[in-house]
Amino acid sequence: MAGSSIKPTPLLKDELDIVIPTIRNLDFLEMWRPFFEQYHLIIVQDGDPSKNIKVPDGFDYELYNRNDINRILGPKASCISFKDSACRCFGYMVSKKKYIYTIDDDCFVAKDPSGKEINALEQHIKNLLSPSTPLFFNTLYDPYREGADFVRGYPFSLREGVPTAVSHGLWLNIPDYDAPTQLVKPLERNTRYVDAVLTVPKGTLFPMCGMNLAFNRELIGPAMYFGLMGDGQPVGRYDDMWAGWCMKVICDHMGWGVKTGLPYIWHSKASNPFVNLKKEYNGIFWQEELIPFFQSAVLPKECTTVQKCYIELAKQVKEKLGKLDPYFIKLADAMVTWIEAWDELNSSEGKPAKLPNGTAK
Amino acid sequence: MAGSSIKPTPLLKDELDIVIPTIRNLDFLEMWRPFFEQYHLIIVQDGDPSKNIKVPDGFDYELYNRNDINRILGPKASCISFKDSACRCFGYMVSKKKYIYTIDDDCFVAKDPSGKEINALEQHIKNLLSPSTPLFFNTLYDPYREGADFVRGYPFSLREGVPTAVSHGLWLNIPDYDAPTQLVKPLERNTRYVDAVLTVPKGTLFPMCGMNLAFNRELIGPAMYFGLMGDGQPVGRYDDMWAGWCMKVICDHMGWGVKTGLPYIWHSKASNPFVNLKKEYNGIFWQEELIPFFQSAVLPKECTTVQKCYIELAKQVKEKLGKLDPYFIKLADAMVTWIEAWDELNSSEGKPAKLPNGTAK
Repeated sequence: MAGSSIKPTPLLKDELDIVIPTIRNLDFLEMWRPFFEQYHLIIVQDGDPSKNIKVPDGFDYELYNRNDINRILGPKASCISFKDSACRCFGYMVSKKKYIYTIDDDCFVAKDPSGKEINALEQHIKNLLSPSTPLFFNTLYDPYREGADFVRGYPFSLREGVPTAVSHGLWLNIPDYDAPTQLVKPLERNTRYVDAVLTVPKGTLFPMCGMNLAFNRELIGPAMYFGLMGDGQPVGRYDDMWAGWCMKVICDHMGWGVKTGLPYIWHSKASNPFVNLKKEYNGIFWQEELIPFFQSAVLPKECTTVQKCYIELAKQVKEKLGKLDPYFIKLADAMVTWIEAWDELNSSEGKPAKLPNGTAK
Repeated sequence: MAGSSIKPTPLLKDELDIVIPTIRNLDFLEMWRPFFEQYHLIIVQDGDPSKNIKVPDGFDYELYNRNDINRILGPKASCISFKDSACRCFGYMVSKKKYIYTIDDDCFVAKDPSGKEINALEQHIKNLLSPSTPLFFNTLYDPYREGADFVRGYPFSLREGVPTAVSHGLWLNIPDYDAPTQLVKPLERNTRYVDAVLTVPKGTLFPMCGMNLAFNRELIGPAMYFGLMGDGQPVGRYDDMWAGWCMKVICDHMGWGVKTGLPYIWHSKASNPFVNLKKEYNGIFWQEELIPFFQSAVLPKECTTVQKCYIELAKQVKEKLGKLDPYFIKLADAMVTWIEAWDELNSSEGKPAKLPNGTAK
C-alpha cells in the first residue's frame, strides 16, 4: 500500500543544483536562505554581461554571463537565448547533478493556510522521489502522499507507478496569466491553496511554467531546452511552454511521469502586460498550431534515449511547423545544436565542463 | 475571460431529481433536509420489498421496490440488479428530469476547513453548468471558478470548453478503498480537503464512485447503467466503476467533459472489508483486463447518440470480454436490455412511465 511507506524526505544536498536565470535583488536570496543555503546555485545572467550580480555571503554558487556561455559553447552558443530568462537552460547543461530546481527571482517563500512557511524544495523532492501514475487517474490525487492511497477501482497492476521526471509547482498571489488575461483581469490574485499533487495523465498536454520547477536531470535533462526567445527572436514567454510540450511528449513515450500542484511559491510581481503582449503575440497565434502538432506527435520505437527522441522531434518540428514560420526551421536547428552541446558537456568520458571565470567558492 | 462571468448558482428545483438506493436510517434525510427538501427524491429500495422504508415528513418522493421494478419493466427488469445498490440506476431511468444527483445513505453533510457546512448539491450544479476542459490541462484547475482562469500557454481556441456531463464528488472521513486496502489500512481516514475541481482529461479513465455523483441525464443518462451486481451475480462493488468506464469512453467520443473534486460529503461508515472482499475478488482480477479493454475501445463515427454508443460498447464487451468469463456475455445482453428499457420509458411520444404503487405525494 502506497501511504504506508512514508519516509523522511532526504535533502539531496549533493545531488541537486538550483538554477536561477538572474538575480535582480538581494532580498530574493535572503528570503530563501534557510532553504537554499545548503545547495549549490547556478546563476545564468540573462542581461548585460558587464553588469555585476551581487550574491550575498554564505551561498555556494557559480555564475555564468553571456561571455562565459560563448566561451564554453563556442559556435554552439547560438542555441542559448540572449537577454531572456530562457538562457537558464544553459545551467541545466553545465550542472553535474541528478536533480535541478529552477526558480525566478520574483518568487518568494509562500505560506500554507496554517501560516507556516512552505519549504518548496522539500515538496519538489518528495514529488520527484515518489512515483507518478500517468496511466489511470486517482481521484484522491497523489496516492503516495501520507493519508492517501489508491481508491477502489484502481488496477493493482498500475499501483507501482512509473518514475517521476518532472515536478511542476504553482504560485500564490500573481497567477501566471498571458498578456490578454493580465490586461482583462489586472487585479486577479491567486488566493486558493489547493492541497494536492497529481500526475498529468499520459497523452495530456499542459502549460509548464518555469517559475517554480524541478526535474530529474538524469532522466529528462536533454529535453529541457527553453528554445530561442528574446533578443533577435520573434517571440518570448514561450520558453517554458516549449520545453513543457517537448518534455511531455518524450515522457509519455519513455514511460515517465509529470506531477503538478504543490509546492506553492509567492509570486510577488506581475510583469508588464504591454511588454508581454509584444513578446507573446506570435506565440498566442502559433500555439493554436503547436498544440495539435504536439498532441499528434508520435515517436518511433527506435527512440530509446531522450537525445534520440529530441532529435526526432526536431525533425518533425522542421517538417511540420517550418511551414508555419521560418522561425521553426531555425528553432529545429537550435534543438539539434542543443543536444550536440549537451552531449559535449556531458560526455561519458566525463570530460569536465570548462570552468567559467566568474565563479566564487 | 472565464472567471468574469460568475453568476449565482441556480437551484434547478424543477430540473433535478435526487436518487437514493435505499434509506436505512432517518438521520440521513434529517441531516440533509435543508439542502434536499426542495427537491424530488427517487428512492430505489435495494433490499427485501416487504420491508417498509420510512421517509420523514416534508419530503417529496417516490419509492420503488423490486415488485415495482418487475411490474414496470416486465421481463426487462432482468437488467436491474437485485439486493444491491446498483439498482439505483432504475431511478435514473424513471426520472423525467434533466439532472440527477445520487448519494448513499451513509453519506452526511461535510464541513469545509472554515467549519461551514458544505452544500454538496450546489457545488455539483456549479460543476454541471460550467464547461469542462478535457483537451488540455489547466494547472490552476477549473478555469471557470471564481478567482481562476486559463493560464499562460492555454490555447485560446479551447477556452470555451465543452459541455459537462458528469460531476464526481469526493468523500471526507472514510475513503473509498477496496477491500484489500481497507484490510491493510483499517484506520486511515481522508482528512485532506482539496479545494479543487478539475476535468478528467480526454483519453484518461478514472474510478467513478457512485456515493456522491451528479450528471446531466439528458446528455449521458443512457450510459449510466450500473450493471449486474449482487444477488445471483459473481461480483459486487463494481457497479459504479463499470458505469464510469463506459460513460467516460462515450463522453470522450461525444466530446463531453467529466469533472472530479469538490464537493465533499462526510462518509460516515466503512463497509465490512471481509464482505467486500467476497464481493470484489472477481472484479479485482477482471479489472486488469477491463482497463486495457476500455483504454483501447474505439467507437465508430456512426455512433452519434449515447444509445448507439452504448449498444456498440455492449457488442465489444461480448466479443472481447466474453472470453474472460461468461458473466460478460450476460452483462453485454443486459446492457442492450437496459437501453431498450430506457428508450421505452423515455420514448419521444412522451409515454409516461407507469406509476408505481408505493409513491407518496
